[in-house]
Formats: sequence, C-alpha cells, structure tokens
Amino acid sequence: MPSLRSWFNIPKGSHFSLANIPFGIISTSAKASPRVAIAIGDHALDLDAFASHNGFSALSTIQPHQHVFSEPTLNAFAALGRPIHSVVRKYIQDIFLENTPHPSVLKDNASLQQAALVPLKEVKTHLPFQIGDYTDFYAGLNHAFNVGVLFRGASNALQPNYKHLPVGYHGRASSVVVSGTPIVRPSGQILANPAAEVKTPIFSPCRRLDIELELGAFVCRKTKLGEPIPIDEAEQSLFGVVLMNDWSARDIQAWEYVPLGPFNSKNFGTTISAWVVLADALEPFLAKGLESDTEVLPYLKEKKAENVYDIKLQVDLKTSSGNTSTISKTTARNLLFSFPQMLAHHSITGCPFNVGDLLGSGTISGKEPNERGSLLEQNENGKTTVKLAGGEERKFLEDGDEITITGVCGGDEDALVGFGECVGRIEPAVKFPF
Amino acid sequence: MPSLRSWFNIPKGSHFSLANIPFGIISTSAKASPRVAIAIGDHALDLDAFASHNGFSALSTIQPHQHVFSEPTLNAFAALGRPIHSVVRKYIQDIFLENTPHPSVLKDNASLQQAALVPLKEVKTHLPFQIGDYTDFYAGLNHAFNVGVLFRGASNALQPNYKHLPVGYHGRASSVVVSGTPIVRPSGQILANPAAEVKTPIFSPCRRLDIELELGAFVCRKTKLGEPIPIDEAEQSLFGVVLMNDWSARDIQAWEYVPLGPFNSKNFGTTISAWVVLADALEPFLAKGLESDTEVLPYLKEKKAENVYDIKLQVDLKTSSGNTSTISKTTARNLLFSFPQMLAHHSITGCPFNVGDLLGSGTISGKEPNERGSLLEQNENGKTTVKLAGGEERKFLEDGDEITITGVCGGDEDALVGFGECVGRIEPAVKFPF
Repeated sequence: MPSLRSWFNIPKGSHFSLANIPFGIISTSAKASPRVAIAIGDHALDLDAFASHNGFSALSTIQPHQHVFSEPTLNAFAALGRPIHSVVRKYIQDIFLENTPHPSVLKDNASLQQAALVPLKEVKTHLPFQIGDYTDFYAGLNHAFNVGVLFRGASNALQPNYKHLPVGYHGRASSVVVSGTPIVRPSGQILANPAAEVKTPIFSPCRRLDIELELGAFVCRKTKLGEPIPIDEAEQSLFGVVLMNDWSARDIQAWEYVPLGPFNSKNFGTTISAWVVLADALEPFLAKGLESDTEVLPYLKEKKAENVYDIKLQVDLKTSSGNTSTISKTTARNLLFSFPQMLAHHSITGCPFNVGDLLGSGTISGKEPNERGSLLEQNENGKTTVKLAGGEERKFLEDGDEITITGVCGGDEDALVGFGECVGRIEPAVKFPF
Repeated sequence: MPSLRSWFNIPKGSHFSLANIPFGIISTSAKASPRVAIAIGDHALDLDAFASHNGFSALSTIQPHQHVFSEPTLNAFAALGRPIHSVVRKYIQDIFLENTPHPSVLKDNASLQQAALVPLKEVKTHLPFQIGDYTDFYAGLNHAFNVGVLFRGASNALQPNYKHLPVGYHGRASSVVVSGTPIVRPSGQILANPAAEVKTPIFSPCRRLDIELELGAFVCRKTKLGEPIPIDEAEQSLFGVVLMNDWSARDIQAWEYVPLGPFNSKNFGTTISAWVVLADALEPFLAKGLESDTEVLPYLKEKKAENVYDIKLQVDLKTSSGNTSTISKTTARNLLFSFPQMLAHHSITGCPFNVGDLLGSGTISGKEPNERGSLLEQNENGKTTVKLAGGEERKFLEDGDEITITGVCGGDEDALVGFGECVGRIEPAVKFPF
C-alpha cells in the first residue's frame, strides 16, 4: 500500500501518519474542558472544534452523533461501534489527503485550521476512557516461562492451564493513568528476609519496583450479565489499542499473592499511552502470534491465523542523572493469545462488559535477554544487574527513574502507525505516618 | 437504649425499624426513573418526592444538596460525607417519631404521605451504587482455615501472610447485581478428571456452583493516586454495609486460579442486598472480631477493639420443588480484619478510591459445621452432601435453586437494624454455540 500524501505537513517518521489517525482526549490552555481529538503529525485536530465549525458537513452519518466529540472521554464515541469508527477515520484521512474530495472543509479553510489544529506540544492529554473494569492477562508466553523458571524451575515453568486459556486477573481500574502521570513508589508489607523460617513482614517502601511492557485494548460493546461474546464477534467488540506499563512491586507481590493473586503490588499505577490506535489502523499489521502445541477449545478458536499485531516495542530508562538506555526491544507478536480470544474467554461465564473496559495483554518478552519486558526477568530475580549508559546499573527502579515505552508498526517513514510514548517517572514513597 | 416509637405503623420484627433508616434506589410503576429512598417498616420513603414536596424544609443543611435524591444511584449522596449522612438519617428518624418536633412535615401531611410513602411490595429496587471498583477480601478466618484444610491439610491451612494483612483481590465491578437478579450458571473450562496426570480441560457448564456468605461495604471518599487513607480516617470513609453473595464456580476456579488467583470463577455474578445500612446505624452493634495471636503493623492498628459488627446471618436454600432449608447460621463477628483495616491496607500503596467502590469481607463462617458460609466447606470439597428439607440433598447448587441471605442486628423486635434479603436464583447455563 503506497503511503497517503497529505497537503498538511506530517513530518517523516511521525507515529501519527495519515495511515494512523489515533483518538485521544485533550485540553489546552485556551480551553480547559477535555474533549476528543485525533493526532496527526505534530498536531492534534480538536474534533469538538472541528464539529462545531461544520467540519463534518460532508459526512452525514456522523451528524446526529457529533456531541460525542465534546465528551471528556472516548466512551460515547466508542459506543457508536466499529463501522462508525471506520467511517470517521476514513473521512478524516480524506480531509487531509493532498487530493482531498472535500478541500473546502479544512484544506482551503484557514479559519477552521486556526480553530481546530493545535500543536501537540501545546495540548495536555487525559485518560482516554472512563474505565469500568480493567483486566490484566498473562498471554506473553516468554514472560510467563521466564518468570516460571525463576520461581519453579524450567520443568514446571508453565502451569498446566497456561496454553489452554488466557490466564488473567481482575485489576484496579481506578489506578490506570495516562502517560506522563508521576508514579509514587508504593509502601506496604515486605519480607526483609524471605528465606527466614518464620515469615514476619516489615513495613517499607517497595525495594523491588518493576515495569511490565504490555499492550492494552479497549472494549466498545456493552453486554448483559449472562451474555457471552462469541469469538467471531470479539474483534468487532474492540475499539483500539494502547501501550501499557503495568508497574509492579515485586517484593509486595511475593508476600501478598498467595492464594488470591497479585493485589497491592499492582494497584498503585498502570500507565497507558494517550492516543488510542483504532483496530482498523492496526489491521494491516495483523500477524501470527506464538505457535502453540496445544489445541484450544472451540469457544477460543478464531477463523484467521493472523490474530496479533506486529508492533515493534521498545523500553527506555532515563536515570535522574540524565542517561537514557534502551533496556528492551521486542515485538507484540510474542503473545500466545489474541485480544479477541481474551474477550471471548473473559465473557464465556456471562461476565458483562461496558464500553471502556480495558484488557491488558500481559508482559511481552522475546526469547533473548535484551527482549525481556520486565526487570525481574532481566536481573533474574535480583541476581544480576542491568547495565545502563554512563556506567550506571539497576536491579530495580530508583526514585527519579523515568520509563518510556514506544511502539510502532510499519517500515515506511511516511506511513507509520505508532502509539507515541507511554511515560512514567518514579517519585519517592509517601512518608509514614502520613 | 429504648426503642424509638413512631406514629407510623412499623410492624414488630421489621428489619427497617426507626433505629435503622437504610438507603436504596427504587422505581415504581407510576414513576420509572430510579431515585433515592429509605426503607421504613413495610414502606419506602421516596426521598426524591419527599424533597420536591418540601419534606426537608426543617433541615437547612441538606437544602443545597437536595438534587442528590433525584439521582439513580447513591453516589452523590454518599459523596456528601458521613456528617451529612448522620444529619439526614437523624432528621428522618425525627420526622417519624411519635412526638416528632416537625409534625407538619409528614405526620400531619396526608398529601406528602400519599406522594412519598410507597409499600415496599410495589417498589422495584436497583443496584444502589455505580460501583467503580470492587475488591473482595478473605478476612473470614474460619472460612480460610476450613478451605486451607481441604486443600493443604490442617498444618498448612493458613498461608504465612494471612494474619499479617487482609488478603484480598480485585473483583469484577460490572457483575455486581442487586438482590433478585437471576444468576445464569456459568460455563467454562473444567477438568473432568482432576486426578489425571495430563490435565486436559473440557468445556462445560459449571458443575460445582457455590455461594459465599459475605458483607460488603461502600466507600464514600474519593482519593488521589499516591494518597493512602490512614487507619484513623478509614471508618469515616465508609458509607454503609450490605449483605453479599459472592457466587463461585469451584471447578472453574480450581483449574484457572494458578498463578494469578480467581477470575472467571467469580465474574458471572455477585449479589448484594438492595438497602444499604448506614455505618451510623450499625455503630451500636460494633463488637470484637476474632482474636489474633499476631500483632499487626502500625498502619493497620485501630484505636478501638470493637471493630466488626455483631450481625446475625442466615442462609436459606429453596429448591425448585419448593422446600426451604436453613443451611447456615453465623455472625459477622467471624472476621479477623475490619472494613477500616481493609481500606487502610488497600490504600497503603497509594491506590486511589472513588465514592461507590465496594469492599467484600470474604466468606464468613463460624467454627461449627452448620455455621459455614459456603457449600464447599459444608460438603468438605464434594465428599459429603448437605441434607435439606423434604429428603432432598445437595453437594452444589442445581438449576432452580434459590439462595436467600438475611442479616439482622439487635434483639428488640421494635428496634431491629436489618438488611432485608439478598436473593438469587440459578438459571440454566447458556447453550454453546450461542
């Protein structure tokens, strides 16, 4: 597919090419109320302003629904369903085309350009959805294997259920935050000496603060209690994808997690990227995931073999001394289950969904050491250190460390479909007593 | 404390005496929009109608906030904070007193009685809160011990962390439903032969459908990411309490739960009672919980020893043949941790809270066989059966079975503080393929 040419200046290498058109929520100093926008090149197109200045005049389908662009979240837009998302994305692509069929809408309309196009560096981005429920899966087989080896040895690394179903757990929706939000180091109960026979916890700031490189997918379908989503309808029930950093307190986790799973070790912050890349924009990058030697049950069988996305992922760590090091590079193909499979599994019991529910993929790791999506894997549960630029090194995160995840699809510098950045910086723990 | 006498007919033995005044959400055939009400005797007082007919004329504090009673959930009322809840409850008690200081408001006002008092049998109750996040704890020590014995033997029944912290996990907010909502038997992956060496799951409707007798508490304080709630402020951050049945699919749970905890086995329905009993109404029934031989860390230390509620709990099972059997009787004192401790622990990492977040206590069991709050404990993991009336018996729930949980505080038949009923009936599984 040749890249689409625009009359608008979209810098080469931009994540937000005409092939993308990701959606997000912005505010500006001129207008504080959060509203819907898309990102294009170095700019946001404020869809609230665009709509109120008749930008959608050539798209009759959307006119009865234009109020969704004034909302402070994407929930109402997402609830319109994927056919409408497609039409809106296609229309915005058309508007920006060099040979746009609608030049009077924006190309030749300086006042609308003035009203609706804002440089990205002047916008504040907000959490794109009001998230009803957040579920985190564990579909990164290499990660699950690596962690299993560390805790149970290679022969029992994966649990018997692992290849039969997308293992997951319910997460904390309230602690999902948008890229750029500072993450306060959590405190809690940890074992100062895990090897001691009598286990007596101490109260402490987390000493083993980690990252988890993940993708997140937003649901755009509301279902009722007792109404499973068939696998063939699952893909159409997904709005789009974000990058995700599921910050993890490994020492709190090790002590708390039996028998009911991770809890406080995960609920102090989960960072997602601000711009949601539509499922439509990612479709050209569908690829085969990891091969499985286990046949799944019929309710998890998808018609197509290409069910995960070929997204190049990278994790950078910037220390407070200013050194930046790339600590992981991998691909989102490193998943054993797809988002549609996760949704079909999650709903098989009749669990109801709301528009804006978030599914996390689980930590994505490749097979090589420099492809691992968590520090726990990189430092082999604290046994080694990760070497950084400037002679620095890390086992786990220190206060002031900043983690940046990036993700991008495609090789044509004029047609990238990227996610921008997913950034978080560690702030010192709150002092007790507060 | 002598019971309060009312001019209004409150039947002896009513859960909704003048000492109670629980809050809920109702609609009626005459007015379909859900709104706030309180229950009193066999009636609901529609607070939307009450407010719009100047029922709050003698309470200036609430007048700027009266719109909260027109809302379809209790979130806005709860957000006003406990001092306001107290004032409103006290005012409603005053209005109904035999010697009310405000006779013109309701006692001598037939038209307002006509407009605002509705027989409970004519109201439909709704989920009382929009629940942001739902967390289920595991603070019922006897239950945790009983289940631990079944799966790990008596010497390892409790995990090392159990007495140090309120173990909990994030639940599924979307599947919390109000009393009376039918529960569809979930389907999923189960092991037909758990003892087989090679574990291969089958797809099946749940064969081991169970109940969990719990309490739920609603949060009435919004906090920010990174802002722990000190233990001394936790009690004031809790609005009130409901009965809860955390339906559980034991066979799905046994297969799915390693290593991340219960997931699909819990997200097909959690039933709560419709009327939320305010923390104020429960205060006279505070009592000591279970004794612990373990000193908790300072962030979990409460000033008062009486930190749980002396609520008499009962579970009845009605089969489709119409026989009703009481299968459990116990008290809510059977908890090792209080709701304030759960909230302090949950937020110690800086996990943020929203008004309407729900905390579950964990299954409440006494020490005796007939005091157990789940069938799993009663049937010793499927080894025995529970004898019912009419010669019937059960291991787990069958389609058509109806479970009713009741809970009540106090012994004076004219001053009970009760929860009404928490009811759910099992419907057959959805047939696959759907």
